[in-house]
Amino acid sequence: MSDWDSDAKNASPDGEFVRDTSYIEDRIVAGLPAGSAPEQQGDQTFHWPVEEGRYRLMAARACPWAHRTVITRRLLGLENVISLGLAGPTHDWRSWVFDLDPKEKDPATGLHRLREAYDNRFPDYPKGITVPAIVEVESRKVVTNNFPQIPIDFQTQWAEFHREGAPDLYPEELRGKIDKMGAWLFKEVNNGVYRAGFAGSQEAYESAYHRLWDALDWLEDYLGTHRYLVGEHVTLADVYLFPTLVRFDPVYVGHFKASRNRIAQMPNLWNYLKELFALPGFGDTTDFREIKEHYYYTHSDVNPTRIVPVGPDMSPIAEPHDRDRLGGSPFAEGTTLPGPVPAGEEVKNPEPFQEL
Amino acid sequence: MSDWDSDAKNASPDGEFVRDTSYIEDRIVAGLPAGSAPEQQGDQTFHWPVEEGRYRLMAARACPWAHRTVITRRLLGLENVISLGLAGPTHDWRSWVFDLDPKEKDPATGLHRLREAYDNRFPDYPKGITVPAIVEVESRKVVTNNFPQIPIDFQTQWAEFHREGAPDLYPEELRGKIDKMGAWLFKEVNNGVYRAGFAGSQEAYESAYHRLWDALDWLEDYLGTHRYLVGEHVTLADVYLFPTLVRFDPVYVGHFKASRNRIAQMPNLWNYLKELFALPGFGDTTDFREIKEHYYYTHSDVNPTRIVPVGPDMSPIAEPHDRDRLGGSPFAEGTTLPGPVPAGEEVKNPEPFQEL
Repeated sequence: MSDWDSDAKNASPDGEFVRDTSYIEDRIVAGLPAGSAPEQQGDQTFHWPVEEGRYRLMAARACPWAHRTVITRRLLGLENVISLGLAGPTHDWRSWVFDLDPKEKDPATGLHRLREAYDNRFPDYPKGITVPAIVEVESRKVVTNNFPQIPIDFQTQWAEFHREGAPDLYPEELRGKIDKMGAWLFKEVNNGVYRAGFAGSQEAYESAYHRLWDALDWLEDYLGTHRYLVGEHVTLADVYLFPTLVRFDPVYVGHFKASRNRIAQMPNLWNYLKELFALPGFGDTTDFREIKEHYYYTHSDVNPTRIVPVGPDMSPIAEPHDRDRLGGSPFAEGTTLPGPVPAGEEVKNPEPFQEL
Repeated sequence: MSDWDSDAKNASPDGEFVRDTSYIEDRIVAGLPAGSAPEQQGDQTFHWPVEEGRYRLMAARACPWAHRTVITRRLLGLENVISLGLAGPTHDWRSWVFDLDPKEKDPATGLHRLREAYDNRFPDYPKGITVPAIVEVESRKVVTNNFPQIPIDFQTQWAEFHREGAPDLYPEELRGKIDKMGAWLFKEVNNGVYRAGFAGSQEAYESAYHRLWDALDWLEDYLGTHRYLVGEHVTLADVYLFPTLVRFDPVYVGHFKASRNRIAQMPNLWNYLKELFALPGFGDTTDFREIKEHYYYTHSDVNPTRIVPVGPDMSPIAEPHDRDRLGGSPFAEGTTLPGPVPAGEEVKNPEPFQEL
């Protein structure tokens, strides 16, 4: 069972959905010799050396928390340094499964279920089998599944491996603001949709609904005068918001009853989303079919028929945005856009409006 | 169990929802002496005399098929001639219940469950206990639940009791067109949303989804050049479409996965809906809360948590419409609008934007 998508059972006594937030908090850091063993820290976690080819990012197109890491990896050009394993969109209570791969095994590690990599690290691992998870390829052990730290470490620890012209998504002078925005987004928006969707009572749902819309109204207002969430360019803050926004109209508005309106009906959020979607790394890592299949199929407590909606028509997301009215540009001068998606990493179900 | 809202079980072997369409097809007609007994016809149905105070229209705010009859009764000014009983929005498999009334009994008939009136007429009545149903008050027996015939008979058989200035919703020269449009609307739209929502398989759902949107696209196009569905004024055809359209964004788009877009995102359908909503008889008989409670609570096979969405924000439905650009007017010259809703018949949960 994955803590981030388990069903309405995972609720506090008053019906509010409470996310289990305990993770394997090891980190992969710069400054340790390549090939060296992980070093234990004072807090009992380990630090592992950054090293080309040693690790594999295990993700799933469906999962918004994994999507953050996939976007960051691509913007920074880490594709040739950290490989990517992709679990399929649906899974049972035991874990995500590599059922999109030949013989249902991840080709680099031979893993069938992601659970195996957790158990390799900690036998009978008792917590959620989550993506994103970084696995050491040779040992097939999970190094970390600490989703908020992974994009930050991709930016700050893997700098020597970044592509030429990679953006700085976490500029030093903005880290305080990005962290603050990220913490707020997590509580109010990223997890806010789950709080509405997995509420165990009408009261808990209504409270979560209003709290979520307060946050989205704040963002709609803020984005009327700010092209991006923090500073003048795309930062990790935008990377944190995008996966929730792009899933909102296809999933959260109906499946999670976050139904006041669609994002497509909020001009600033919608145009902001359209701009990000058009950038390499965002739209070209979004697989709407896997996203919908995951939520509508996996959450049988919410959708017992497991029928996956055909709608919504997302094609307007690829139409021109109006964000140039605010001036500025997605990336700072000197930054270049990532090249095409590496062969074999294209989304499996591109929509007709997705140019990859 | 009511045939029109039973759950996904009610599906053919290939998963397509199939509506049970057998009703009690008696009629209440002009030209028979008041107080007389019903007269058996060659087809074994009975004709009952139109008569002030003899009958009660049993409806529920939630039900789109009942909504048609409530709108027609009010437009024609039959409120003082045929009284109105209103079942609550939620019910179990046995039948609609008068649980909004004191002691949970319909004040005019003393009925607790609508089923009693069906059993009074036909002991152990084996078919769907549906609204609308017209009940003879004194005998507490159902006269008819033949929903397509009731609005037509309100117009054509009850003419002597119409209010002064009542519209002709079924003009003789347009009856062929109205009947044809009504049959098409029933198949493609009114029942089309149920076909999508109660589909028993992914294939049946997808087929129903595309069929429904083909019909809505046709209507969107048609209403770009026609203010109303048939002729120059509001007719029964519009009365047939309104209950489905007004329920679309609150219910069908999410609960029934008719999710391509909201009606609010289709300019002609949305403005057409806004115009009708503003007319007496339409908006003032619409109870959004009861509508949502009904679908989301009753269909526990579709929504096992029974949590009722707070959204969508329907307030834009009360904003000005643009239909005057097409010329014409809702009703023919000489027609007047109905007066205020009779005391006691106001919707129980008016939204702030509903002026009653």
